[in-house]
Amino acid sequence: MKDIIKSNEYIIGVDVGGTKILSIIVNYKYEIISRYRKKTKGWSNSSKPEKRIIETIEESIEAAGNPKICGIGIGAPGPVDPKNGIIINTPNVGWENFHVVDILSKHFSVPVVLDNDVNLGTYAEWILGGNENTKHVIGVFPGTGIGGGLIINRKIIHGASGGAGEIGHMTLQIDGPLCGCGKRGCLEALASRIAIAKEIMALILRGESPYLSDKIGTDISKLRSGVIADAIENGEKKVEDIVRRAAYLTGVAIANLINVLSPELIILGGGLVEALGKIYLEEIQKAVKEHAMPFLRKKVQIVKGKLGDDAVALGATLLYVQKIKKNKEEI
Amino acid sequence: MKDIIKSNEYIIGVDVGGTKILSIIVNYKYEIISRYRKKTKGWSNSSKPEKRIIETIEESIEAAGNPKICGIGIGAPGPVDPKNGIIINTPNVGWENFHVVDILSKHFSVPVVLDNDVNLGTYAEWILGGNENTKHVIGVFPGTGIGGGLIINRKIIHGASGGAGEIGHMTLQIDGPLCGCGKRGCLEALASRIAIAKEIMALILRGESPYLSDKIGTDISKLRSGVIADAIENGEKKVEDIVRRAAYLTGVAIANLINVLSPELIILGGGLVEALGKIYLEEIQKAVKEHAMPFLRKKVQIVKGKLGDDAVALGATLLYVQKIKKNKEEI
Repeated sequence: MKDIIKSNEYIIGVDVGGTKILSIIVNYKYEIISRYRKKTKGWSNSSKPEKRIIETIEESIEAAGNPKICGIGIGAPGPVDPKNGIIINTPNVGWENFHVVDILSKHFSVPVVLDNDVNLGTYAEWILGGNENTKHVIGVFPGTGIGGGLIINRKIIHGASGGAGEIGHMTLQIDGPLCGCGKRGCLEALASRIAIAKEIMALILRGESPYLSDKIGTDISKLRSGVIADAIENGEKKVEDIVRRAAYLTGVAIANLINVLSPELIILGGGLVEALGKIYLEEIQKAVKEHAMPFLRKKVQIVKGKLGDDAVALGATLLYVQKIKKNKEEI
Repeated sequence: MKDIIKSNEYIIGVDVGGTKILSIIVNYKYEIISRYRKKTKGWSNSSKPEKRIIETIEESIEAAGNPKICGIGIGAPGPVDPKNGIIINTPNVGWENFHVVDILSKHFSVPVVLDNDVNLGTYAEWILGGNENTKHVIGVFPGTGIGGGLIINRKIIHGASGGAGEIGHMTLQIDGPLCGCGKRGCLEALASRIAIAKEIMALILRGESPYLSDKIGTDISKLRSGVIADAIENGEKKVEDIVRRAAYLTGVAIANLINVLSPELIILGGGLVEALGKIYLEEIQKAVKEHAMPFLRKKVQIVKGKLGDDAVALGATLLYVQKIKKNKEEI
């Protein structure tokens, strides 16, 4: 990168998610020199969804002392059209056909690039997380949804529609519970944070989780990954069982991906893994042993990502470098 | 190909399967000029499994009038190591670590190349079946097993182990029926010809399939795809329901692949689809509509392959041309 980006040039990486928007600025060594975050809440109904993104970016530029910005990379949830720079739709946020690249490149007068957030998170963990020696990598990010990023032969798989990697909507239980996508039995309906919260709320209503009853009452919106981890830490076995089951089912989906794609590395990230990493690693290892074929799984490493909350935004800066500076059509 | 293979040179393509071995010879236009077939039966225990392959190839050469052979391509079931030319293991046949490329190239004194049979069948349907304008293609071949071939960005996906594409061992029902691989709930355990036969034999034993009782008695080995098609043709509704369910479940697995990989074309082949194509197409379309995400499935075409029994052997001749004549490491 040293030869490609000058030492006085900086790149902005933006992670626009369902709950937060994060803008970081990196230098030519991918060191983060400023970081600014805003809640997404409230802006989904705005007629100008770009307003809040622009504000967040501007705050991060100011926090960095107004350096020279050479470009912006954006990671967004749901299906995106990277070629045309359009967020196709994000059911949880409410955008549809949002021409984010056009708008931001006009506003900031620099090149802007876009890809799916999980693709970029996986890409960053691959390149900046010390895994670049591998060729076939799958990133799995369980949270409110469960996203997947696929790197095959050192390239992100976008597929014909541009939106490949929807591992959260892999059917694991025909006629299973209803998913946000309208189907039944998707991995997300069985194992996302919402699926976990649903089960834990039933525990609370039945008086089977005194710790959580005390901490959050019956307000499901307060049931964050950290609180769940605290409950388990405090010996709530039934809460642990629910998390273990979700992690195991995530592992079954990962085993299916191993059977189909034969990766050498699985990188886990996202809020649930950050807070409950040990349980996730244990249960996923177990599920992979039970559901992936021996010759396909024997050399697969399963690890926790290293970049935490910055993964997507860092991946967006990498995307900018690959596409604009190295002129690669795809990463 | 005209510039690459001279008009007096011929290529051999061999499909070594669990039930038959097929050797074809093609000219520089991929026209089949001879075809020879032997049953696999009985040779799995032989100390020299290559004997029968060599015999079959020699018969096909003789049948073609001993033309000048420039190379051999081989398609084999189960995991293979294409780089080193080794069939790793084929549980249904009994080979393990079978150095087929070394042996045949020494015997015939020409270059020999190897890949998985379903990969090659998919590749042939892609190139020779008139689908080369597509970039992302999945081949699905339901039969005794259920194989998958993945073409992403115009390349077959082998993955880190070389053995990617084991879609038959995608878990679709946790704790479901036992599979030949030792796991439970694999697609193959739910929807292969063996799974179908198991259910139909129960019908026969309960006296619920008079047509099949009459045709094959209780000898499950006689329950071939064609006989099943005849029973349905003769109005046996319960037999049809069993086949429809298997086809539907195959479609759920295909929907999962669409969600993960976003292909633009699904090619169906293999014995069950050859005999029961209409039912398979209907049920797979239905399952894809119900289990794949709209933006990923809307442009996906689902078609029956055109090359029938020759697909794998033809794919093997293409493999030879790509690897030896065009010096491509992978196809």
